[in-house]
Amino acid sequence: MATFTVTYLLISHDEMDIDEKIEQVCLEQSAELPRSVLAREIIDGVVGRPVNREQLAHDRYEVTIEWPLANIGNDIAQFLNLLYGNISLQPGIRIIQVDWLSLTDLFGGPKFGIEGIRNQYEIHRRPLSATALKPLGSSPEKLADLAQQFASGGIDIIKDDHGLTDQKYAPFEDRLKSCINRIDRVSQATGQKTYYFPNITAEAHEVEERYQRAAALGADGVLVCPHIMGLPTLHRLACRSEKLPVMAHPAFSGSLTMNENQGFTPAFLYGQLWRALGADFVIYPNAGGRFSYNLPTCRAINNAARSLEVPFKSSWPTPAGGISVEKVSRWRNEYGIDTCLLIGGSMYGHPEGLTAAAQEFSNQLEA
Amino acid sequence: MATFTVTYLLISHDEMDIDEKIEQVCLEQSAELPRSVLAREIIDGVVGRPVNREQLAHDRYEVTIEWPLANIGNDIAQFLNLLYGNISLQPGIRIIQVDWLSLTDLFGGPKFGIEGIRNQYEIHRRPLSATALKPLGSSPEKLADLAQQFASGGIDIIKDDHGLTDQKYAPFEDRLKSCINRIDRVSQATGQKTYYFPNITAEAHEVEERYQRAAALGADGVLVCPHIMGLPTLHRLACRSEKLPVMAHPAFSGSLTMNENQGFTPAFLYGQLWRALGADFVIYPNAGGRFSYNLPTCRAINNAARSLEVPFKSSWPTPAGGISVEKVSRWRNEYGIDTCLLIGGSMYGHPEGLTAAAQEFSNQLEA
Repeated sequence: MATFTVTYLLISHDEMDIDEKIEQVCLEQSAELPRSVLAREIIDGVVGRPVNREQLAHDRYEVTIEWPLANIGNDIAQFLNLLYGNISLQPGIRIIQVDWLSLTDLFGGPKFGIEGIRNQYEIHRRPLSATALKPLGSSPEKLADLAQQFASGGIDIIKDDHGLTDQKYAPFEDRLKSCINRIDRVSQATGQKTYYFPNITAEAHEVEERYQRAAALGADGVLVCPHIMGLPTLHRLACRSEKLPVMAHPAFSGSLTMNENQGFTPAFLYGQLWRALGADFVIYPNAGGRFSYNLPTCRAINNAARSLEVPFKSSWPTPAGGISVEKVSRWRNEYGIDTCLLIGGSMYGHPEGLTAAAQEFSNQLEA
Repeated sequence: MATFTVTYLLISHDEMDIDEKIEQVCLEQSAELPRSVLAREIIDGVVGRPVNREQLAHDRYEVTIEWPLANIGNDIAQFLNLLYGNISLQPGIRIIQVDWLSLTDLFGGPKFGIEGIRNQYEIHRRPLSATALKPLGSSPEKLADLAQQFASGGIDIIKDDHGLTDQKYAPFEDRLKSCINRIDRVSQATGQKTYYFPNITAEAHEVEERYQRAAALGADGVLVCPHIMGLPTLHRLACRSEKLPVMAHPAFSGSLTMNENQGFTPAFLYGQLWRALGADFVIYPNAGGRFSYNLPTCRAINNAARSLEVPFKSSWPTPAGGISVEKVSRWRNEYGIDTCLLIGGSMYGHPEGLTAAAQEFSNQLEA
């Protein structure tokens, strides 16, 4: 029987010892009935089976459970349900790892990944630089002005703020046309290409329409918030034939990772699940900023996104928030060259303006 | 300027007093830049503005912030982003309430709601009974057998287990045809109608195909997991022209509600947001079962789902898990008649079989 495994952190508690906790997960995520009422073939063919257990502390265990692939029916939505459907409603269960090697028929990973982007961009020995067009409320012309300044300073990737959708003050098509046009002009003048990733987050059908429209208008990639549009839609985009890399943004995902005894580890969510679903770039909140991860957590995300043990192309770890222009070399040294550094706010406050800020950012990448 | 408000529980902490915390939310969910770099028209027209603050305890405040409607651009995905996008990644922020009256152009609420279903089903003075077909691994014939027994016992609504999608052992169409056929036969024999809600959870495009297919095959409603397929897709289903009520299942949603200092209150998520998005039935984990909510939380969900202060049709609170057949009258008395009681496991273990269990369940509703 074809199977795959999921590894959990399980926390036992007064009402439930570790054996009961394991049994609970094995049944809850499959038959959803007490073992006593199940036929033998359901127990053998459907219910999860613990295959490894390691005690980490008094009440904490790392437990691996093996699941029949047949339960998923080759369906990403049902994979997510089996992974963390009902057990999301029970305390003391955290997802650490999935055995992706058994899931390569279901997941395809990034279409480009680190190597594909490097080859396309012809940038081989340094991190990538990225920034965001904002704020909400700006007109397409204003956003295009910003894009022009960033491009003039040599930024590799300019993404929309993930809140820019199709508001009246900056309609989707107008915004894309203005920004693409202005960035192209700079690229032609300087000979250095800057890539534009508009935000296409919306209801899933609209996402695909905007994806096609972005491709037709000449965008270089797209930005999406998987936890708003739905995780399976990320995979669907990565499977499309258009050649637009996908950058994933963590909006709305925080609750899944911020409780140490529940949800997903950040490394699993951003570095592994998003990678399996096809994100070429995985944005995560960097240490030291206005968000909540510490440095070891960020390193773990980077490692997961690049790990060679995962049977998909690598994703670009894209730390954001908490990186100031002056500290780019620090982060480059900290995280290594296979990183896309995303700086927004700190450039907007630069005393010499956006182009100078972008130049300072770019210069530190080469060092 | 047209606006709407969101009310938050904010927890101040060592690094950030309550004024800073409020300022953080106002900026993070709009301009995403420091106030110092923003133009006057952005501050006036885009940034959130606190309009009320109440101290609940030493470090806990209930704070209401007013937002420009223009920031949403009539887009449910962008509403979700403004509601809880980046701040999901920051600790000590919990969503309590939204001023739905200002959002009736964006949200439509349930198509049927409590009254619509009562009129259609001609059931006016009692709660509804619901159960689930399971386990995974059963053939369409086996599931149809179960459906027949439940229908013979007088259950109002039979839903699929939310893990039944399109697995080889029970393909979507075969399952629907078998179950619909068998339930219809019982209804014709007894003169009492039982309604079948197949699970259509999948990637968003597939959801709509299955919705149409379910309608064409004669299903009476659909079951979806909004947090797997994507919340905006729930709204899209509720706006379709087919007359299928939508039942929403909480799989994958737990992390949003289970930390008291973060995410959404269960009453807000299940009773308000799902209702605004169009769920006719909102399934939530009942107190006393294998999940984590207590009785006051469940009552708060019920009240939110039925509240007349919300400008949408009411949703059926559908407590599930933790209800045994013997205790149906207790829960009917506890929650009142505008409740759909969902019992799965306890009926499967009934010593006299499913039909007897279903009869016992049904009888207690009338009492």
